[in-house]
Amino acid sequence: MDGRGNLDLRVVKIERGFMPNAEGSCLISMGNTKVICSATVEERVPMWLKGRGEGWVTAEYAMLPRSGKDRKPRDTGKPDGRSVEIQRLVGRSLRAVVDLKALGERMITLDCDVLQADGGTRCASITGCYVALAEALQTLRLKKPALTDSVAAVSVGILGGVELLDLCYEEDSRAMVDMDIVATGAGKYVEVRGTAEGRPYDRKQMDRLLDTANVGLETLFRKQREALGEILAP
Amino acid sequence: MDGRGNLDLRVVKIERGFMPNAEGSCLISMGNTKVICSATVEERVPMWLKGRGEGWVTAEYAMLPRSGKDRKPRDTGKPDGRSVEIQRLVGRSLRAVVDLKALGERMITLDCDVLQADGGTRCASITGCYVALAEALQTLRLKKPALTDSVAAVSVGILGGVELLDLCYEEDSRAMVDMDIVATGAGKYVEVRGTAEGRPYDRKQMDRLLDTANVGLETLFRKQREALGEILAP
Amino acid sequence: MDGRGNLDLRVVKIERGFMPNAEGSCLISMGNTKVICSATVEERVPMWLKGRGEGWVTAEYAMLPRSGKDRKPRDTGKPDGRSVEIQRLVGRSLRAVVDLKALGERMITLDCDVLQADGGTRCASITGCYVALAEALQTLRLKKPALTDSVAAVSVGILGGVELLDLCYEEDSRAMVDMDIVATGAGKYVEVRGTAEGRPYDRKQMDRLLDTANVGLETLFRKQREALGEILAP
Amino acid sequence: MDGRGNLDLRVVKIERGFMPNAEGSCLISMGNTKVICSATVEERVPMWLKGRGEGWVTAEYAMLPRSGKDRKPRDTGKPDGRSVEIQRLVGRSLRAVVDLKALGERMITLDCDVLQADGGTRCASITGCYVALAEALQTLRLKKPALTDSVAAVSVGILGGVELLDLCYEEDSRAMVDMDIVATGAGKYVEVRGTAEGRPYDRKQMDRLLDTANVGLETLFRKQREALGEILAP
Amino acid sequence: MDGRGNLDLRVVKIERGFMPNAEGSCLISMGNTKVICSATVEERVPMWLKGRGEGWVTAEYAMLPRSGKDRKPRDTGKPDGRSVEIQRLVGRSLRAVVDLKALGERMITLDCDVLQADGGTRCASITGCYVALAEALQTLRLKKPALTDSVAAVSVGILGGVELLDLCYEEDSRAMVDMDIVATGAGKYVEVRGTAEGRPYDRKQMDRLLDTANVGLETLFRKQREALGEILAP
Amino acid sequence: MDGRGNLDLRVVKIERGFMPNAEGSCLISMGNTKVICSATVEERVPMWLKGRGEGWVTAEYAMLPRSGKDRKPRDTGKPDGRSVEIQRLVGRSLRAVVDLKALGERMITLDCDVLQADGGTRCASITGCYVALAEALQTLRLKKPALTDSVAAVSVGILGGVELLDLCYEEDSRAMVDMDIVATGAGKYVEVRGTAEGRPYDRKQMDRLLDTANVGLETLFRKQREALGEILAP
Repeated sequence: MDGRGNLDLRVVKIERGFMPNAEGSCLISMGNTKVICSATVEERVPMWLKGRGEGWVTAEYAMLPRSGKDRKPRDTGKPDGRSVEIQRLVGRSLRAVVDLKALGERMITLDCDVLQADGGTRCASITGCYVALAEALQTLRLKKPALTDSVAAVSVGILGGVELLDLCYEEDSRAMVDMDIVATGAGKYVEVRGTAEGRPYDRKQMDRLLDTANVGLETLFRKQREALGEILAP
Repeated sequence: MDGRGNLDLRVVKIERGFMPNAEGSCLISMGNTKVICSATVEERVPMWLKGRGEGWVTAEYAMLPRSGKDRKPRDTGKPDGRSVEIQRLVGRSLRAVVDLKALGERMITLDCDVLQADGGTRCASITGCYVALAEALQTLRLKKPALTDSVAAVSVGILGGVELLDLCYEEDSRAMVDMDIVATGAGKYVEVRGTAEGRPYDRKQMDRLLDTANVGLETLFRKQREALGEILAP
Repeated sequence: MDGRGNLDLRVVKIERGFMPNAEGSCLISMGNTKVICSATVEERVPMWLKGRGEGWVTAEYAMLPRSGKDRKPRDTGKPDGRSVEIQRLVGRSLRAVVDLKALGERMITLDCDVLQADGGTRCASITGCYVALAEALQTLRLKKPALTDSVAAVSVGILGGVELLDLCYEEDSRAMVDMDIVATGAGKYVEVRGTAEGRPYDRKQMDRLLDTANVGLETLFRKQREALGEILAP
Repeated sequence: MDGRGNLDLRVVKIERGFMPNAEGSCLISMGNTKVICSATVEERVPMWLKGRGEGWVTAEYAMLPRSGKDRKPRDTGKPDGRSVEIQRLVGRSLRAVVDLKALGERMITLDCDVLQADGGTRCASITGCYVALAEALQTLRLKKPALTDSVAAVSVGILGGVELLDLCYEEDSRAMVDMDIVATGAGKYVEVRGTAEGRPYDRKQMDRLLDTANVGLETLFRKQREALGEILAP
Repeated sequence: MDGRGNLDLRVVKIERGFMPNAEGSCLISMGNTKVICSATVEERVPMWLKGRGEGWVTAEYAMLPRSGKDRKPRDTGKPDGRSVEIQRLVGRSLRAVVDLKALGERMITLDCDVLQADGGTRCASITGCYVALAEALQTLRLKKPALTDSVAAVSVGILGGVELLDLCYEEDSRAMVDMDIVATGAGKYVEVRGTAEGRPYDRKQMDRLLDTANVGLETLFRKQREALGEILAP
Repeated sequence: MDGRGNLDLRVVKIERGFMPNAEGSCLISMGNTKVICSATVEERVPMWLKGRGEGWVTAEYAMLPRSGKDRKPRDTGKPDGRSVEIQRLVGRSLRAVVDLKALGERMITLDCDVLQADGGTRCASITGCYVALAEALQTLRLKKPALTDSVAAVSVGILGGVELLDLCYEEDSRAMVDMDIVATGAGKYVEVRGTAEGRPYDRKQMDRLLDTANVGLETLFRKQREALGEILAP
């Protein structure tokens, strides 16, 4: 739709240190989708975790009012259903690669603030938060590393009967099937969520979607490594 | 864990007409999980749908305070994140088998109220709501049938390295992977959501989980047909 | 209006143990009015009671969205005025027959969830909660019994100049006077609330309403005893 | 307790026109209880009444933070349960003496703001609102008078086994039984609410309480007439 | 506009002890603007001040629904933006003349409740709260006086090119510039807030406005001294 | 404190077009303070303005959670008092230079989202919003220009007895007096708000503060012109 091949990611950029007050942060762009990811370390844990010697990783997600084509009013009261769903997914995805015991009694809050929204903001949030988290964890100089793997996410979908990688908003809104895949650098799934917006899909289509996602994930892991540079080196 | 084989569903019962004021309703039990599903038909559509000649199907989900082992305070303000996530899933799942044009400018609200919670309440809600919806649609005597297929849902998981069908709460809380599968009677997927709570899973495991789900879905579709009886017959 | 005599209660049924997770519970039906009553025992008291060696009994009341002819949206934010008024009445009525010192530093929450509403839900809630409460108290095996009396409630009204017992919704909405009487098994009043919806009433009418209520209360106390069976026996 | 006989009202004063911006208003004092009552007339009715040619009368009730011995935080969110219960009672009581058809499609809001609270604020609110309402209705110069009767309220109670009239806060908090009686000038009851705070009461006691109330109501109706003066004269 | 000269205050009255339950209080009138000011002393400080040996002074502001020409709905949820702005200003202004160390670990809450609003309610609140505060502080019999100066406030504005003192509502709504000046008895500024509602103003105009304010402030400080009488005398 | 002279602004940068979806936008930096300003044009006006042929300009202000040294929780419910105060100031300041009749029945919403907070965010918001607004107005190609002047804002203060220009957070929190000046390019004041945080200030000090502000404002107007370039040229 935008000149890419079906198996091409949009242009990916990860700019580390975008929020200098945060312990870790980056601005991640996937085409016209841009998300500020920041990681805050606090020396406390939620009430229900106190005294267990373990830490916690959680996430919050919001869109700037003018991140989209139309202005979206700010949340009043609790965040809307969609935001809650996304921030739960982001938190769960990052916890999957953190050894909470190694983290110790600390809480890391990952803030995802969408500057520009053109599809795939939840996947960009996960991919970017990994970079912010790794940067923040390095500042702690833990004896035992708390990161057990890397994690990234990409969307795939079926549009006009064809599998597509990394859907932009226009593609996403017209796709019959929309699947988000969160996977680790070691090739395992943290989350697979395939949703038929219109027509249900069969098992063969599902297999092809998972293959398509793998192509994109490989690039995303490379971009993360490049952004983190010396942080990943032992 | 409760004497069942790994591929056994818990005892399923669907009692139609449980809420006599509603246009359609049932009480669905899957073992100790019990959900009241009711369908309300209103001759109006949400603002954003007005004048398009189409209808809408939406869902709400809540738990009675004493549905679980401990008392859960009632929602104040907006429903919590988990409830929002579930009711969006239920609505989407049922819309996947409804021809909204055939429904006409009407809104159907599916209320899922959990009487007893022992794991799998979202799957039971979907399976039960199909029965309530079918009953409600019949009262409309539409010229063109609005139901295009049936829909049911089941959970599968990996516990102790083994695939399990229809997890109860105890099993669910100990499972490494938890997957909800929403599928149609025609064998297509509406939603597949596989979440690694602890250890990520690989592709082979994913395939085995999908096979396991099929075993349970078959039984659920049969139970729905039995409950609906004459309603399904032409 | 529904074939009953003016001094006839609707058909009363009390099904104990309806919510097996609760310490005490029942489903009470008075004709087409059905309320789930459950009692939760917690080993804590509200802040303001701490350290006094006394317990507390409180109530919450809500209607399932499709308990009535039309769908009633769920409460968002605080419960509406009517629900608050009812739950305060239910709590006060049950506390009137509980020795809070004998209860000790415990809190009992009575949840009234209306499955079907056809008039008299607050009276049914009180009558049913007594059964749930007695069942819950028995599980505590207190040295000194905490129940000092039984309690039940019934509505009476004036419709077409005639006194009626146990008004259904249709009768209630047309009655000129509506009175709820909460009384103990020993024949004393806990609460009398007579409200003129249209035309005020004089003292003679009030006397006749109280006589009418007594007829119904006698039956309700008998139904409670039958439901509790061995629990009441020493 | 404060030197009065058991059948003596506290000193009653009604100062009309206390809120000059309102269509009708007064400051009513019953001993140390002081309530500002104001009536606002608006040329609109609530949505659900539109087009029926009838009006509506409603009430709101709040306490100034320092009306009592301790500072009471202001309501945030909806008014608390007690305030809701009171404002519903005040609205219902005043509607009992208004011919809503004669009022026409108008809404009258009665605001009760408690300056000083020493027991009996809901009764003082009703008695004072009648004066504010009568003043406001006169400004409308309706062809057919909208007031069908007068209305006032008084509390009675049982303390130390003796019936008392018009309880102050200290008496009220120690009374075993507390009863509010709302009655019309023609001697009919609009509302009788007798609540046992501690020990339930029998029918004889109830009869004596109603007799006691009549003594106080007579004085209140006279005070209202004196305050309204020329307004009541034809 | 109302017969006053441009440099005349409206009629000022300060009636001390208006809320007898409060530690200090007054009713202040400036023409048709009337505000109840009360001061509550509590032997506690906000969380963030604990253990520092200092006190705190804060304010709340609200309007009775019928204080103005039209009925203003009561705040639901948080107070509106304007009320928040005013109560922050009142708190800050009074803290400017209190030695918080001399106050000790106590909190004083100043409640400003507007009975009648005809312009200048925030200035009247500040001027009146000083009287309530001084009365409340006297009851504490502190060794070292906590009041370091007096404080009062007045509005000035430009209407039709002319400087006006103490604007009533009608004048305020037509003024091009509106300025509130909060000053101490010793002639220093606590707050100067000049806002151009329509046409911006230049520096000469600003100087003339400050001169005009001084005329009014002098009278207000005298009225405060008269109201406090013996309290100010050593 | 940070090496600047007392009359030096921090480094000012205005990067236009930062939010490409918005009709006008910029990222404004004043030293370490960075605010995203965006202007949204909508072809509607608030209810109360309908049919008058005039437009409206309003503002919203929020901080990203990690804009400061510590993480600030997101607003739930209404924005906090400080945010409300700021967004009202921003809206008023920009309306002072817009001819609302020339704008026509349109609404412009200015969103100020703080990326980094180091003092002076409200002044930066006003200065940046002027640029976003001018850019947005140009897209409308109005016959009669809606901008009547430019507007910018700067803070000044007294710290250690000396007047300072453009306070950073550290300076601001230690200043005895803090003044925000909003002025137009033509040299008139829109708003002057001088607040004594600790010690009140006299008239001479006020005069010196206004002189100091003028120095900074001149630079800000030049930066705005540079950023807008061809937009300002006829």
